[in-house]
Amino acid sequence: MIQYSEASTEVRAIFDDIMVTRKTDTINNFWKTLAQHPAILRRTWESIKEVMTPGALDPLTKELIYLAVSATNQCQYCMASHTASARSKGMSDEALGELMAVVGLANQTNALAAGYQVEIDEQFKPAK
Amino acid sequence: MIQYSEASTEVRAIFDDIMVTRKTDTINNFWKTLAQHPAILRRTWESIKEVMTPGALDPLTKELIYLAVSATNQCQYCMASHTASARSKGMSDEALGELMAVVGLANQTNALAAGYQVEIDEQFKPAK
Amino acid sequence: MIQYSEASTEVRAIFDDIMVTRKTDTINNFWKTLAQHPAILRRTWESIKEVMTPGALDPLTKELIYLAVSATNQCQYCMASHTASARSKGMSDEALGELMAVVGLANQTNALAAGYQVEIDEQFKPAK
Amino acid sequence: MIQYSEASTEVRAIFDDIMVTRKTDTINNFWKTLAQHPAILRRTWESIKEVMTPGALDPLTKELIYLAVSATNQCQYCMASHTASARSKGMSDEALGELMAVVGLANQTNALAAGYQVEIDEQFKPAK
Amino acid sequence: MIQYSEASTEVRAIFDDIMVTRKTDTINNFWKTLAQHPAILRRTWESIKEVMTPGALDPLTKELIYLAVSATNQCQYCMASHTASARSKGMSDEALGELMAVVGLANQTNALAAGYQVEIDEQFKPAK
Amino acid sequence: MIQYSEASTEVRAIFDDIMVTRKTDTINNFWKTLAQHPAILRRTWESIKEVMTPGALDPLTKELIYLAVSATNQCQYCMASHTASARSKGMSDEALGELMAVVGLANQTNALAAGYQVEIDEQFKPAK
Repeated sequence: MIQYSEASTEVRAIFDDIMVTRKTDTINNFWKTLAQHPAILRRTWESIKEVMTPGALDPLTKELIYLAVSATNQCQYCMASHTASARSKGMSDEALGELMAVVGLANQTNALAAGYQVEIDEQFKPAK
Repeated sequence: MIQYSEASTEVRAIFDDIMVTRKTDTINNFWKTLAQHPAILRRTWESIKEVMTPGALDPLTKELIYLAVSATNQCQYCMASHTASARSKGMSDEALGELMAVVGLANQTNALAAGYQVEIDEQFKPAK
Repeated sequence: MIQYSEASTEVRAIFDDIMVTRKTDTINNFWKTLAQHPAILRRTWESIKEVMTPGALDPLTKELIYLAVSATNQCQYCMASHTASARSKGMSDEALGELMAVVGLANQTNALAAGYQVEIDEQFKPAK
Repeated sequence: MIQYSEASTEVRAIFDDIMVTRKTDTINNFWKTLAQHPAILRRTWESIKEVMTPGALDPLTKELIYLAVSATNQCQYCMASHTASARSKGMSDEALGELMAVVGLANQTNALAAGYQVEIDEQFKPAK
Repeated sequence: MIQYSEASTEVRAIFDDIMVTRKTDTINNFWKTLAQHPAILRRTWESIKEVMTPGALDPLTKELIYLAVSATNQCQYCMASHTASARSKGMSDEALGELMAVVGLANQTNALAAGYQVEIDEQFKPAK
Repeated sequence: MIQYSEASTEVRAIFDDIMVTRKTDTINNFWKTLAQHPAILRRTWESIKEVMTPGALDPLTKELIYLAVSATNQCQYCMASHTASARSKGMSDEALGELMAVVGLANQTNALAAGYQVEIDEQFKPAK
């Protein structure tokens, strides 16, 4: 991992942008690790900054979606860091419980649809 | 698949409840297939009915979470049927675009966190 | 895909062994496709022949396990071909229903365990 | 996590039912964690109780299927807790070895079927 | 899907860049679909253009890695389109066979490592 | 785990072959664990030995492909052990960074292709 004190000017500028954007004075292990390869660090940070910004969906909804993917993929680091992010953006205990209920249900029915080889209904097929 | 006309009384009651709850007069292939095993049909429908109901999260947010899991799992049937559900609950083109952007990003960073074996930061570890 | 009539002697010998072992006179598309690379064809067939044979677990139980993995992975080809295998080995409609119920449940609780970052209980940790 | 001593009456009743049904006097971390959201705790426990009961498939076979899914999904908590369950229901070392052999094989051939884009044989297509 | 003839100036400029960079005169369905949301189209294309360029790894090796991920994820569209890309960059039949052999093996041993809960050897743990 | 000193003659012969082939004097936890079931140990080792050998693809490229699958599957043990293997075969920091960039990108676009239900282009469909 690359610490701020040992980072190159390029990496330090990205670390600074992360801390300013997120209103924090610490850099997570994820970013310190990506900093080994400044091109990935830059591209990943720029994507996150652009994607997670408020738009048609609000930032908390985006965090919930992020958590849904991470729980499905069994990503322990992502669950740990983004559960903290979601809470800091206002996720209540009730919201977490309902999120997990939907995530559990979707993983269940995804397996059932595949397991039973359910054929797509005509009315659901995407227009060509 | 079990059609309504050939369904048992038990299955027909569930089909009726699905149509009334969803304000529709058709039964999807998913339910017609599960109807081969009434116990799974009943349990799955009751779970969905209970989980997808409005609560701390609104029904559209729950559909977005459902889609996030289904895209991650490559579930074609689920994407087809629940994209239709989400649209019927008001998902705009912009919201779909932002949903997919977050889902793509999360799948990317999940792989990076695993690939780099990033260690969980002390401040993110769940309290014991 | 390599058809029997155009197969090399090496590939034809494996095709013959598949048909004799499985008591059938057709070769599935899976094997015809792998036959493009005889080394993979041979290694895969030998593994399957050895692994799926009766042992501490009977052949039907092994097919159920195979289906559980394939539904989880959303493998359409594998579900189609191995549902047929399992039925030919005696899988009843009831058994399929119960298999799918367990597969759906496990996918659900797997996501919950990851989503909630549940810590492994001391009594479940593998001995070192 | 919610300990028994601090649980609500609703949660305590479910904890009691888990201990009676499983003939044990401890509650796993999984249930203590779900207890933060009593609705998920109740729904998950009722599903497991109903699904894992003896039927067309015996309880040990159901545990093997559960393990097959959990290994495929890389769910560490689930492997730890359900390996213990399966052993308590009689899984021998040989059975575990054969289970893992089938799980490894299925994950291998699932990837091959997708990687080679194998087309589903006519005789395997589900009847419409 | 957005066809070139009906695309906005912004989308058309990206379509042009794709065709020039890839030395082709057709736009795949993937890009025509993403074009519904120009921000995703732009971000995804810029990432691919930057990531898939020659560097420490040559373009063919990058395509093989891309295929390995896509087969693991059961992504049918990705396998179809990137098998074509890899062949156009020189992937031989032998290389495809060896790629698939490694992908199958890795999916197998990944499941075994999880299934047996293998503990990480001291010498493999990442330095802190 | 089975240590060398307590291994059967059959297991010891495989352990010896692993150490000779890999030019090392230690046996990883993966092999010590599989040694509980000599048939899996033998089959897995023989497959790895055959698959990872130089061919149309060189051993380092094969390790990169192995890592791509393991990061996608979130296999922590596999990432730890095979990152070490890949480094011992010459993987540079730059190569690791580019590998991870492709793996992250592929996981992202795999989810987008599924999420948007992109239809396979005629020119990409495999010949029948």
